[in-house]
Amino acid sequence: MSLEEGESLDRIYEFAVQLGKDAGARLLTAATRMASGMERSAAKHKANAVDLVTETDKDIESFIKEKIAKTFPTHKFIGEESYSEGSSREYQIGDEPTWCIDPLDGTVNFCHLFPMFCVSIGFILRGKPTIGVIYAPMINQLFSACVGKGAWLNESQRLPLMREPIPELPKNAPGGCIFSCEFGKQRKDGPNSNFRKKIESFVSIASDKRETEKEGGMAHGVRCLGSAAMDLAYTALGAFDIWWEGGCWEWDVAAGICILQEAGGLVTTGTPPGNDLNIEISEVGLGSRMYLAIRPAGPSEEETGSEGQERVVKAIWKLVNTLDYPRQ
Amino acid sequence: MSLEEGESLDRIYEFAVQLGKDAGARLLTAATRMASGMERSAAKHKANAVDLVTETDKDIESFIKEKIAKTFPTHKFIGEESYSEGSSREYQIGDEPTWCIDPLDGTVNFCHLFPMFCVSIGFILRGKPTIGVIYAPMINQLFSACVGKGAWLNESQRLPLMREPIPELPKNAPGGCIFSCEFGKQRKDGPNSNFRKKIESFVSIASDKRETEKEGGMAHGVRCLGSAAMDLAYTALGAFDIWWEGGCWEWDVAAGICILQEAGGLVTTGTPPGNDLNIEISEVGLGSRMYLAIRPAGPSEEETGSEGQERVVKAIWKLVNTLDYPRQ
Repeated sequence: MSLEEGESLDRIYEFAVQLGKDAGARLLTAATRMASGMERSAAKHKANAVDLVTETDKDIESFIKEKIAKTFPTHKFIGEESYSEGSSREYQIGDEPTWCIDPLDGTVNFCHLFPMFCVSIGFILRGKPTIGVIYAPMINQLFSACVGKGAWLNESQRLPLMREPIPELPKNAPGGCIFSCEFGKQRKDGPNSNFRKKIESFVSIASDKRETEKEGGMAHGVRCLGSAAMDLAYTALGAFDIWWEGGCWEWDVAAGICILQEAGGLVTTGTPPGNDLNIEISEVGLGSRMYLAIRPAGPSEEETGSEGQERVVKAIWKLVNTLDYPRQ
Repeated sequence: MSLEEGESLDRIYEFAVQLGKDAGARLLTAATRMASGMERSAAKHKANAVDLVTETDKDIESFIKEKIAKTFPTHKFIGEESYSEGSSREYQIGDEPTWCIDPLDGTVNFCHLFPMFCVSIGFILRGKPTIGVIYAPMINQLFSACVGKGAWLNESQRLPLMREPIPELPKNAPGGCIFSCEFGKQRKDGPNSNFRKKIESFVSIASDKRETEKEGGMAHGVRCLGSAAMDLAYTALGAFDIWWEGGCWEWDVAAGICILQEAGGLVTTGTPPGNDLNIEISEVGLGSRMYLAIRPAGPSEEETGSEGQERVVKAIWKLVNTLDYPRQ
């Protein structure tokens, strides 16, 4: 389905960026009130800190939803909070113009005033992330992109930040790379648990190749931020070379995927395809829940940037386990 | 040893804060030049990106060293870069007024333009961190403290940020807590390696208590930033509840320990004392290389803030392994 008359992508992009700024300002106000004790004392009747934060989540989602409904009344809306209230976990994104938003990604960080929290606003057209806005108000970093217009930090610095030239991916990747990942919410330990399979995948990527029986990737650094949207934003920026994660929902990644792709990054499935890696690497659908993202890359003498990205995808697939995150 | 005539702590503090700002501005300039390709092309003759960054490290350390020598010519100076050039790994901090600085903590982050890099400036009197300044210029967060004057973010917001009241530590800590840690540089996998013992300690703190045979801590979130100085700063802020790390050097932690303690946080050894946890928890010496830090905490109905911190120290000691980081 197409846009209505009078709706241009330019206009929607401008609206989305302003919406991100406004929602982020509200997040910052809520954080400031929390720091000063106002919110906490006002919420004393609530069960615990999580309830309080859910109120912030809901407030910001309502604010965003109303703004969108007023400006683009025919567009579909999917938000983390409204979605979670439904019992179904089915994938609801179709061809129609759809907003897919997370009012507060990194809720635990917000709760602790660790700056890696953000609002994430994705606009999807014909099933594809077309506009993305991620704003982390505590550190004033606004990431934005619209298909065909590039990806930007604070509307002025084009992503990736290093671009004259864009660095190639290390020949021994994940060696030389910053690998970004998350411990996640599932913490049941045991040989077949997602948690243990994740941890052993991290070890596989981080450990020294020369010192173990099992071949390790010896990534240069491992980072865990607690926000999938920030992970994707920093991969688009070039700060992270590789992001691998399981368990995301579409509102966690819709904006970030658009920003990453517009910056020149690659996103595909985080599930290794089996022993035969001699396959075509395809774009991943928004509902997949398992992601592997590679930063924008320049060419080297031996390969194009895309060839480098595909080489790193295959290197990671070799090192990680298959995780199990069904939709239901 | 005491300060010279005319040297007041106030004056030294003011000097240290300005020095942090100036050094941070130089870091940001270097980062901007790197992004624009200027530094990278100017350094093409060098072996690799690490060499380049070492130049930035050295430049900033020289800048700081000269400023200190000019203003406080009798003070001792210990910097990561100058120290590393010597062959000895002995602990050199005595009673005399001593500056202990890391010109660039989070070198890998800097190299990738991930904002969690900083300059860390500690001033030590009679062996004790007395002034601390940590400045992360890319996100414009300046952390500072001087003994008796509190700890501050950007010279205006007192730490911890949540203070009316300062939150108590969760009763089931590390449940409900953000746990901060680092994968570190040692990556040799194997049952007795520091790397494996670190990883299994992370699992022990993060895994679900109810679902495993081994008791887990079920921390609310796990964060890895790649900078010990930023880890300590965010523990002082209250963003992280617990930081546990092995392998640090004194320039990584001198400033951060002062800031954390002035904010009301606790720092002790990261090495569990054995089975008898019924011991007095003592402050850790700067040369220890193993640290456990707990955020500032308010009282609950059952305990004082300090009692809460000591309870969490013991909970963590029960969950972590002993690591081996000798000085030589």
